[in-house]
Amino acid sequence: EAPFVLLGGINVIEDLDFTLSVAAEYVRVCQTLNIPLVFKASFDKANRSSIHSFRGPGMDEGLRILAAVKAEFGVPVITDIHAPEQAAPVAEVADILQLPAFLARQTDLVQAMAETGRVINIKKPQFVSPSQMRNIVEKFVECGNGQLLLCERGSQFGYDNLVVDMLGFGVMKRECNNAPLIFDVTHALQCRDPGGAASGGRRHQVAELGRAGMALGLAGLFLESHPDPSKAKCDGPSALPLELLAPFLAQMKAVDDVVKAQAELIIE
Amino acid sequence: EAPFVLLGGINVIEDLDFTLSVAAEYVRVCQTLNIPLVFKASFDKANRSSIHSFRGPGMDEGLRILAAVKAEFGVPVITDIHAPEQAAPVAEVADILQLPAFLARQTDLVQAMAETGRVINIKKPQFVSPSQMRNIVEKFVECGNGQLLLCERGSQFGYDNLVVDMLGFGVMKRECNNAPLIFDVTHALQCRDPGGAASGGRRHQVAELGRAGMALGLAGLFLESHPDPSKAKCDGPSALPLELLAPFLAQMKAVDDVVKAQAELIIE
Amino acid sequence: EAPFVLLGGINVIEDLDFTLSVAAEYVRVCQTLNIPLVFKASFDKANRSSIHSFRGPGMDEGLRILAAVKAEFGVPVITDIHAPEQAAPVAEVADILQLPAFLARQTDLVQAMAETGRVINIKKPQFVSPSQMRNIVEKFVECGNGQLLLCERGSQFGYDNLVVDMLGFGVMKRECNNAPLIFDVTHALQCRDPGGAASGGRRHQVAELGRAGMALGLAGLFLESHPDPSKAKCDGPSALPLELLAPFLAQMKAVDDVVKAQAELIIE
Amino acid sequence: EAPFVLLGGINVIEDLDFTLSVAAEYVRVCQTLNIPLVFKASFDKANRSSIHSFRGPGMDEGLRILAAVKAEFGVPVITDIHAPEQAAPVAEVADILQLPAFLARQTDLVQAMAETGRVINIKKPQFVSPSQMRNIVEKFVECGNGQLLLCERGSQFGYDNLVVDMLGFGVMKRECNNAPLIFDVTHALQCRDPGGAASGGRRHQVAELGRAGMALGLAGLFLESHPDPSKAKCDGPSALPLELLAPFLAQMKAVDDVVKAQAELIIE
Repeated sequence: EAPFVLLGGINVIEDLDFTLSVAAEYVRVCQTLNIPLVFKASFDKANRSSIHSFRGPGMDEGLRILAAVKAEFGVPVITDIHAPEQAAPVAEVADILQLPAFLARQTDLVQAMAETGRVINIKKPQFVSPSQMRNIVEKFVECGNGQLLLCERGSQFGYDNLVVDMLGFGVMKRECNNAPLIFDVTHALQCRDPGGAASGGRRHQVAELGRAGMALGLAGLFLESHPDPSKAKCDGPSALPLELLAPFLAQMKAVDDVVKAQAELIIE
Repeated sequence: EAPFVLLGGINVIEDLDFTLSVAAEYVRVCQTLNIPLVFKASFDKANRSSIHSFRGPGMDEGLRILAAVKAEFGVPVITDIHAPEQAAPVAEVADILQLPAFLARQTDLVQAMAETGRVINIKKPQFVSPSQMRNIVEKFVECGNGQLLLCERGSQFGYDNLVVDMLGFGVMKRECNNAPLIFDVTHALQCRDPGGAASGGRRHQVAELGRAGMALGLAGLFLESHPDPSKAKCDGPSALPLELLAPFLAQMKAVDDVVKAQAELIIE
Repeated sequence: EAPFVLLGGINVIEDLDFTLSVAAEYVRVCQTLNIPLVFKASFDKANRSSIHSFRGPGMDEGLRILAAVKAEFGVPVITDIHAPEQAAPVAEVADILQLPAFLARQTDLVQAMAETGRVINIKKPQFVSPSQMRNIVEKFVECGNGQLLLCERGSQFGYDNLVVDMLGFGVMKRECNNAPLIFDVTHALQCRDPGGAASGGRRHQVAELGRAGMALGLAGLFLESHPDPSKAKCDGPSALPLELLAPFLAQMKAVDDVVKAQAELIIE
Repeated sequence: EAPFVLLGGINVIEDLDFTLSVAAEYVRVCQTLNIPLVFKASFDKANRSSIHSFRGPGMDEGLRILAAVKAEFGVPVITDIHAPEQAAPVAEVADILQLPAFLARQTDLVQAMAETGRVINIKKPQFVSPSQMRNIVEKFVECGNGQLLLCERGSQFGYDNLVVDMLGFGVMKRECNNAPLIFDVTHALQCRDPGGAASGGRRHQVAELGRAGMALGLAGLFLESHPDPSKAKCDGPSALPLELLAPFLAQMKAVDDVVKAQAELIIE
């Protein structure tokens, strides 16, 4: 099996300089570690908890910034969309389109994304079981696009908490035609204070959760970092401090390498 | 406290005659039982499990049919929308706009709905805790619309199952400025066979779950019926057989009457 | 269907005078409301969170106090046991033996309790599904005792929280030979502060949760009260203030009366 | 950090020859791989689903067999007890006493086990949060025994299903004085068919779940194997086929080695 791909970047595009400087660090670290990189950044956070929350630069400016990243570093990019009419223009820049978890069952959005012919990263909703991912996969296939990545980001576990069911990866793979599996480790760290107005997170545990996921031998890791998570405009509590990107990824790669070298144990 | 209002009707508009004939029965039964009625019907099921599933007549034809219901019976109507651009045209016909659970955190949709000035029925997402509903309420208020109904339809409980937390109603009310509470009893009956391509349901338990909800003294009950649930084009497994509407609502009303007559027990 | 029976009393026996005075109030209120009463009190809290927690007077003194209640008021009593050797001596005094939730699958305890010939109240464990209660029921039946009550006290819902699945009552009844169903409303109010050393509770919501349960038409209600919950030696956060016993039970009875008068709606 | 210890063996003692032959294979494989072994076997399954289920040889015969394992192979042994009076006699043979999950809050049992002075393996109940394990730990410490292992075996996730929260290990460690953490991978595989009379399992996923746990850098792995899981007298659906013990443990060790060699990433 091939080593894992990193879908790595930032939560939201804050501005051009910020995005380029973070991308530069991702590119540098991934070259050093020989990890294939797809740079991830969102142009619009369309479902923030509050209307006062920062949403990002919007689609047009966001696509210009993503294009600048591609031009500067020669890496593919991934971004998420929220409405069918965004699919075509975004597909002109983005190499992978991401379907957000809350929207993963919206048929019109699925259809518009499928028709771009781009690879699609489907975020598994927190409320959907691994075996039910098959229905979303089949929708894309019926729309003519079978280039699908399935991305785990945790399941709802009681109120205001997520849990990653490590057995769910295997179920998804089996139910979904052996599709490549991605682990979104940073969103899986989200939690909420019952009365809080923004997502909380457990970024101090990102390495242990990341290693557990990599131990399954996955196709890819999804990761968001920030130079100063305490000042991030969105999801800082779950973000990896960018200065730790190199040692963090080195640990992930070491686990990935060791498990990818192991033969599968077939147990009836 | 006032007796409960019924947000009652059908899952999806199958056609004009079907809709009028079901509405006629709702109107007849609610007049007999003296229950205020808002007729509910969807013109588009935008998140069906499969692309082959029936979606409905679409917005234009759907609004014509809803207008026909209003003209024929003089009842207000409620319907759900899925994109910001639907808010204004739908608000010309619908008296209450419904925000679907999966979309309840999409800011653009919230804003467009708020700006219509219509009453909004917010479906509580299966993945949102009662206290977190406050953030959605505050978004609407910030957008200038505080005429909000909060509608419980069950919380994710493990995989492919929902549970209604009866304690959550009180939490929502306290956290959300005493907003009127609605109980969507039919969607709360949904469940899924792990491998199934469509929602399952537990319609044989609709009366017991409905009575439990009404015992809390709620502002409203949300209900979907069908003349023949086994032939319904969507969510039949959760639908009440229409021929049981009268005895079902009589039971709900009896429970509502008895609890609304009770003084609140104040316990520190 | 018969009106509900109250399995009502105190969490733990604090001393003789305390127990008699609370029992007197239960007897008085239940006579006024015409509610059959079985007085409940525990002689040992065998699984407190801390070793410093109050456990009660122990079996011998506890049975003397329960016998005094029976002698004084002529009511049957129920108490819980924790070891097989307690079954026979306790059965000489108690009319109903209660199997604690955590111990509900301990075969030796089940067997010893079954052999007393007494009625058994099985507390459904927080970790057992309604349909799995059948296995516990079958164990008792295989041991020769089919006089069983099934008592719901909430299911684990994420961490440190319980939820009562109102649909579970019907599942249990159907899977367990139509056994009488009891609702333990006070233990279902338990919750925990993640770092706390004792159970928390939501006693301010006891009336709404109680009414929801009674709306199902159950055989019995299980309730713990205390003259001053803030000073109770165990589970005060979930206890009903004793001074509210009369209005609380009047509300429960009103709901029970109205639903027991309703015909069952048979839905395929 | 030290390499992991294996608490490995069989679910239930079927007889002397069976136990010795399985132990021989564990000893052989662990010597080859240089994994410290504590042999695990239960003499009584005290909470089987059915009274007809096989329970084991009982304490006296079970201890004779465990003593024979020690004599034959010179390995320490671990077994579980279910009643306070078993603590002292079992501690004469067993090097580690195991507290079953369902019984983990029974104060008398905790006290009797603590007083033996033996190391205690506390199975985390399916209904207890990681942070609440602190109360059980404190009970043991108050009883004079702080030699504690904390063993994760999954948390209740909806009905009839378990999930292992990989973030819970870190929470437990932090809340419980840095106690050594064990991962019971085979019991975490349990699940139930809603109508089934015995536990089901997902033994075909034991390697992936095991690797995920080992990626956290734990003190120990708990494992049950059987020469023919389909004929095991208890919990066969979760058991590792014994013939795969060597390749399975080699994989676990490879992951453990790689993560134990990594520096901890300290993230605020």
